[in-house]
This record gives sequence, C-alpha cells and structure tokens, in this order.
Amino acid sequence: MDALEFLAQHEADNLEQLKELLRIPSVSAQSEHAADTRRCAGWVADHLRGIGLAAEVCETGGHPAVIAEYQGPAGAPTVLVYGHYDVQPVDPVELWKSTPFDPIESDGYLLARGVTDDKGQFFAHVKGVEACLRTAGAIPCSLKFLIEGEEESGSAHLNAFIEANRERLAADVVVISDGCQYGPDMPAINFGLRGLAFVEVRLTGPDRDLHSGSYGGAVANPVNMLARMIGQLHFADGRIRVPGFYDQVYTATAWEREQFARLPFDAKAYRRSTGAPALWGEPGFTPLERTWIRPTLDVNGITGGYQGEGGKTIIPAWASAKITMRLVPDMTPEDTAAKLEAYLRQICPPSVRLEVIHHGGAPAVQVPVDGPWLEAAARALETGFGRRPFFTKEGGSIPVVGTFKSVLGIDTLLIGFGQQTDNPHSPNERMLIRDFHRGCRTAVALFHELAGVRR
Amino acid sequence: MDALEFLAQHEADNLEQLKELLRIPSVSAQSEHAADTRRCAGWVADHLRGIGLAAEVCETGGHPAVIAEYQGPAGAPTVLVYGHYDVQPVDPVELWKSTPFDPIESDGYLLARGVTDDKGQFFAHVKGVEACLRTAGAIPCSLKFLIEGEEESGSAHLNAFIEANRERLAADVVVISDGCQYGPDMPAINFGLRGLAFVEVRLTGPDRDLHSGSYGGAVANPVNMLARMIGQLHFADGRIRVPGFYDQVYTATAWEREQFARLPFDAKAYRRSTGAPALWGEPGFTPLERTWIRPTLDVNGITGGYQGEGGKTIIPAWASAKITMRLVPDMTPEDTAAKLEAYLRQICPPSVRLEVIHHGGAPAVQVPVDGPWLEAAARALETGFGRRPFFTKEGGSIPVVGTFKSVLGIDTLLIGFGQQTDNPHSPNERMLIRDFHRGCRTAVALFHELAGVRR
Repeated sequence: MDALEFLAQHEADNLEQLKELLRIPSVSAQSEHAADTRRCAGWVADHLRGIGLAAEVCETGGHPAVIAEYQGPAGAPTVLVYGHYDVQPVDPVELWKSTPFDPIESDGYLLARGVTDDKGQFFAHVKGVEACLRTAGAIPCSLKFLIEGEEESGSAHLNAFIEANRERLAADVVVISDGCQYGPDMPAINFGLRGLAFVEVRLTGPDRDLHSGSYGGAVANPVNMLARMIGQLHFADGRIRVPGFYDQVYTATAWEREQFARLPFDAKAYRRSTGAPALWGEPGFTPLERTWIRPTLDVNGITGGYQGEGGKTIIPAWASAKITMRLVPDMTPEDTAAKLEAYLRQICPPSVRLEVIHHGGAPAVQVPVDGPWLEAAARALETGFGRRPFFTKEGGSIPVVGTFKSVLGIDTLLIGFGQQTDNPHSPNERMLIRDFHRGCRTAVALFHELAGVRR
Repeated sequence: MDALEFLAQHEADNLEQLKELLRIPSVSAQSEHAADTRRCAGWVADHLRGIGLAAEVCETGGHPAVIAEYQGPAGAPTVLVYGHYDVQPVDPVELWKSTPFDPIESDGYLLARGVTDDKGQFFAHVKGVEACLRTAGAIPCSLKFLIEGEEESGSAHLNAFIEANRERLAADVVVISDGCQYGPDMPAINFGLRGLAFVEVRLTGPDRDLHSGSYGGAVANPVNMLARMIGQLHFADGRIRVPGFYDQVYTATAWEREQFARLPFDAKAYRRSTGAPALWGEPGFTPLERTWIRPTLDVNGITGGYQGEGGKTIIPAWASAKITMRLVPDMTPEDTAAKLEAYLRQICPPSVRLEVIHHGGAPAVQVPVDGPWLEAAARALETGFGRRPFFTKEGGSIPVVGTFKSVLGIDTLLIGFGQQTDNPHSPNERMLIRDFHRGCRTAVALFHELAGVRR
C-alpha cells in the first residue's frame, strides 16, 4: 500500500505537525482560553482543507465544532470519525516535568497536554487520510470528520448539534479513537459500553430532627430504614435482589466470553490497583465480566443526620441516597429504574415516607459482534499494529456513542490508540510516538477495510 | 404548716424577686454576657446569704458556681439541691412577643428567658427555704445548694468541680427541678433516665473514589456494605439483632409498668407531634415504654460518597455512621458497645475494612422504686400541687445525675415544676406563675418529708 510507505517516509513531518497542534492551549473549561480554543478549531479546519477535504468551523452555541467531508466512490460506505480538539486544564502545573503546551520527546513518548486525549488520536486519522490522498489520490470510502471542542467540559452543545446536523453527519459507521489499547502493544477494539440508570431515593420520617433520647424507640429512624432498604438491594453473594432486575439482561455469547478469557489479567495486581482489601462481585463471572457484561447497583452517595465532628443525639428527619445502575443489553434505564422503585415501595415500612426521583440514563451500546464492521476494524488494527487486536468492552458509558446510535442510528467502533498509563487528565500527559504512527497506519487500513464492507 | 401560709402571703414578693433574677442576662454561651453571668452568680449567692444560708461564689475555671449550705439537726439527712442560673441565648429575638430579659405577666404565665429553665425552678426551692427559716426559724434537714452557671453551654467544668468538692457536696439525696410535669396540673416524679453508648463505624474499600463504570461490579461499595450491615442491626419488627444486646436489660417491675399505664397518653396526638407517618417500635411495649424502659440503636448520621447536587458516578472510598444506643438498667456502655463491635466484625465482608471508634457513654440511672426517697417526694408534691404525682421516666440522659451517682454515690429526685409547652430554648419561654408558687410549696414540704426519711 503506497499510503503506508508514505507514512513511513513522513513520520517526522507528521510528528512535527502534531506538535504544532499541541502548542495551541485549547482548554475548553477555562474562559481565558476561549480564544485559543477557537483558534484551535480554525487550525484543525485549515489543516483538513490543506489535505484536500471540505472543512468548516461550525458554531454550536459554545466552542465551535469542525466538520469535514470527503466524497468517496458512489455506493461506498460513509465513515464518520469523531474526535475532540479541546483538552483538560493543566493544573497542578507544578507536577509537570515539561511545559504542558510545549511538546517534548522523551523515552519514546511525546509529552504534552492533550497528546493522547485526544489530539494525537484524531490527528492520526487525519494523517491517514492525507497519506491516501497524497498517494492514491483518493480514498475508497466516503469520510466525515466531526471534531468537537467541548468534550472536556461536558459536551453541553453536542447532542443538539448532532440533531441539527443529522443529515450532514449521516454515515454508516462511526470511528472513535479517544481511548486505550488493552496494554502496551495490545491493540483492542472496544465493542460495547454499559448504560446507566440514575435514581435518587429519599426517606422522610419525623418533620424535624428529633431528640433520640426522648423519641428513640418509638419513632422510626429514616437512616436506619434507608440502610435496611439498601441492604436488601443485593443478596449476600453480590447478586442484585430487585425482582425482575435480570429479566432483560442479555446472555453474553460464548464468543464474547472467549475474547475476555484470552485477555491477560492479573487479579492480584488489579486488586492492588484499587486499594480494596479483596475483590468482590457476582458469582460465576470474572472481574472483567463483572465490569463489562453484568449490570450493577451502586450507591454513589448517602447522606442523613449529623455528619460533623463528635456526636449529635438525633433521630434524623430524613436520609437520602444517590443510586446508579450500570446496564447491559437489553436493559432500558426506564424499566430498570421502575423495577427498583417498585421494589423499594414494596420493602419501605409505613413508618417513613419514600420519594424516588428518576434522573434518566442511557441504555448500553453494543456493536453487533456478528456484523461486518468489527472484523474489518480488526484487520485494520492488525495492519497498523502488526498484531491481531483483542476484543474488549468498557464498564462506563461514552454518551456520544449513545447519541450516534439514537440520533444517527449507527454503531461506533472504539479503537483507542493510547495506553492506560498515558496520564490523560493528569500531569505529564503523554503518548507513545510509536502508538501515534501505528494509529496513522491503522487509519489508512481502516478506510480501505471499511470501504469493502457490504452494508 | 406556717411556712406554707408565709408563702401564700408572700407570692407577690417572691414573684418580684424572681423577676429581678430574670432581668440578669446570664447567657453562658455568649462571651459578651460573661460579666452578666458572673453578676448573676453574685446575685444568687447574695440572695441565699440574705435568707440565712452560708453561700459562696466558687470558681470553676469557667463561669462560677454557687454553693450554699444550711446545717440542720444532727443526724438528719442532707439534701443537695442542684440547679443552674445560666440561660440559653435569646435568638431569634424577633420571634419574642416580649423583651426576653424584661419579664412580663400574661395569661397566668411569666414570660422571660430562663424562667422555666431553670431560674423559676431552682428559685422555688430558695423561696421554700426562706419560708421555713422565716417561720420556724429552722429546717428539719441539712441543705446544700449547687447552682451552676454552665449548664446551657455544656457544663464543661462541672464534673471536675463536683469531684474537687466531693466532701463539701456530700449529701444523702439530690433534688433537681429543671424539667416538666407530665402535663398541666399533672405533677410527676421522674425516677429514671436512659443511658447512652456512642460508637462511630467506618468502612473503607478502595483507596480512592473509583469510577463506578470501570470498577462497578468487581469492587465492593463501602456505602452499600455499610447500609447492609446497619440493616442487619434490627430485625424487621424493630427488635435489635446484635447478639446478647438484651442480656443485661432489666425487666421493668409490674409496679413500673402500672405507673406508665396510668398516664394519659394520646398515641395519635403523639404521632402528629413528631410528623412521622406512623409510630414504630419494639413489639410488646407501648410508645412510652419504648422510650423509657427499652434500649435503642439509632444511626444519628451517615455519610459516604457524593452528596452534592446531581450525580457523580463513583464507588466511594469509604462510608461512616455515628451510632448511639440508649441504655436501660443494667446495661453498661462498654459491654453494649463491645457487643455491637463484635457483631459488626462478624457481619463485615472481607471486601471492606472496618474501623470502630468507641466514644464512651454512661449507664442508665434509676432511683430505687422501693427506697424511701420516692414516696417522701411524692407526698411533698401532693402537698405542693394538691394532687398525688405520676411516676414517670425519661428516655434521654441528664449527665449530672450520673455524676452525682458515680462521684457522690447518691440518687437524684427529678421533680420538674415546668410544662412541656413552656418553650425552653425557644422564643417566648414561659412558666405558669401558678407552677412557680406550687414549686415553692413543694420545696417546703419536700424538706420536711425528706427529713423524715430513715437512711
């Protein structure tokens, strides 16, 4: 493939251009960097135009997004590459070994704020496009880029922007490189994310904090009652006790569990990395499976009564808990939250009042494992990294993936070029220079492989 | 009894003197009233000297205490009257109908800060002494007064003061009038208080808050685990599940439960007064019994994870709860807390670390119901109020009662002259003028009745 040779010859140029991009302090969360952020959008659009795409800086109501388009052969699939050009703040800056916006090379790494999250990753796709166009003069599929500028500050305007640009962004598949490989030299395709349902529970007892001496024993204590109810949400072995909770839970295929079993996993090191005295979880599943293909119910916060120094002898008037449930296919946030509420109402004693506030959520997303995209992407990664990728999942959610599914109706291929040790969001953010170049090669291969997919 | 006639003739004088005492803003918690508080101690000592007692303002390290002594006939019992001359702050002052330190009479009440808590109550005893001395020239028992000035700000120096003055304060029985009758025209003797054991429980899981997407399902959540453990501290019916918890619990005598059954009690009104949707508690006991003669276990506060607005998808690193247990005879705080800790250690899963902090406590106190003091006090109240008193208990503790028992080795007669509707600690504190005069009469009768007790 000429494009791969082109990349091999232009590694120094590409790295130099990435450094130029990294020198723009596009910190979207900090208003003093608003002009830098807008300048960065301009840089990205200019660069995309420079390599031959139709690119535009688009207003979103916040920091602008960049859309670029390339028209491939008639009938070829359209690939939408999503990324973000904004970066995290640099604080605490005194912990950096280098200057965050003055990229340096060190021990095979490029150090700079935003290098792995996400400038170095989306730019690899840009360089892949360039290599194709500069060698073959064409790309075998249609391409769109959506590079936003608010990912690190909550993507407040993204959903509305995608909805408003539904037709312009229409595609057959999305590619996101904004994450990690499974480990060093272990490329991976993440083919699924858990969803989320968020519910707040509040128990009210007396209409004010009562003296626990005068009333203790005759008036139910909302904290005790809430604890009792939360204690009934799991069985002792870790399974969730909410009736019907698992009814819609899909059964992972043998293929899925086989992929996970193939992954090197050191349970001791994993436990040590958490600081917890022991691992825990649903019987019959490995730690990776518990976090990837099984639903959860976690109290993220609980509050009630006196929490200051010393003691206060009260029966608190109320207690509340924030509860999130991680969802797997084919659960829905509405159904899952409704089942939780029904169970809570069933076990709530008459001596307290129960209020359940539904904060919504999002279902899990899963790229069909028997569809054509996954295998095409795997072949591309093998070309880029010289090794067949692992197939992984992720326990958290990436909201934009859900948006692409619900608004554009398309699946997302999550192909992270970074490492878990790259320090995104932390001082000394870095990316292996090798991983950047492998990412560029993967992009070239990916556009060719995806072009061959029969929809 | 001449002294009672004397009181009848001097009601106006006594009320006027009480008003003078009430005009001194002896707010012990507020440093701007430190001089007023000390002036109040002087006023009390002067007054006690004026009626013929040896009185002294004694330094305590904080606000001074007043000790006064009267030497009765050789061999007669010694009665120690405890009270406090300090008062609560007046805020929110805008809710007062009168000026807090300018006592006014209204609808049979005297309105002023401190009138029922405790100036009007301890002063009734002073006026009783005066009536005896001005008529018979003598009191048939020996008397001591301990009127402290830090009760409303925590009695920080009281225990040390009592220990240091152990011999000077030696007596056969303590009398405290710093509380309420059972209801209007329903005088009562409180013959027992519950004790307390205070324990803090902390569970630690991961060494930092973890992303609940990445780790949820594989790492135990300390909030869920703490809730589960707290939920196991009671049976569903309200009984406490800690093994051995009830082993040392005394069985209330038939006489005790008979006294409580005699008390008018409106469960509906009681529930309404709490604002709770329903009453609750241990089967086989009435609400009064649940709060007076049965132990409890209440979480006074719980905290863990994110408690701000919205959500935060974490597995919290830790969770903690403040737990107090109300104790009845013959439980000890040490034994009860040790049993709780043993049970918590038994039910704590290996996936979290448990820390239990013991904050101590105090045992319950109970005046022997078959001893001579109770019946003597009952006869005195009958003289003072024209009605045989009820026998009640109290679910909270009054620490000084425990100190008198542990340091001086003597029981305390709790004879409150106030009403539950007197608004102590609140705006518009008041006391029925009738109750004040009845208190003076009760004091006269009490000194005579207690004098007749054979120790």
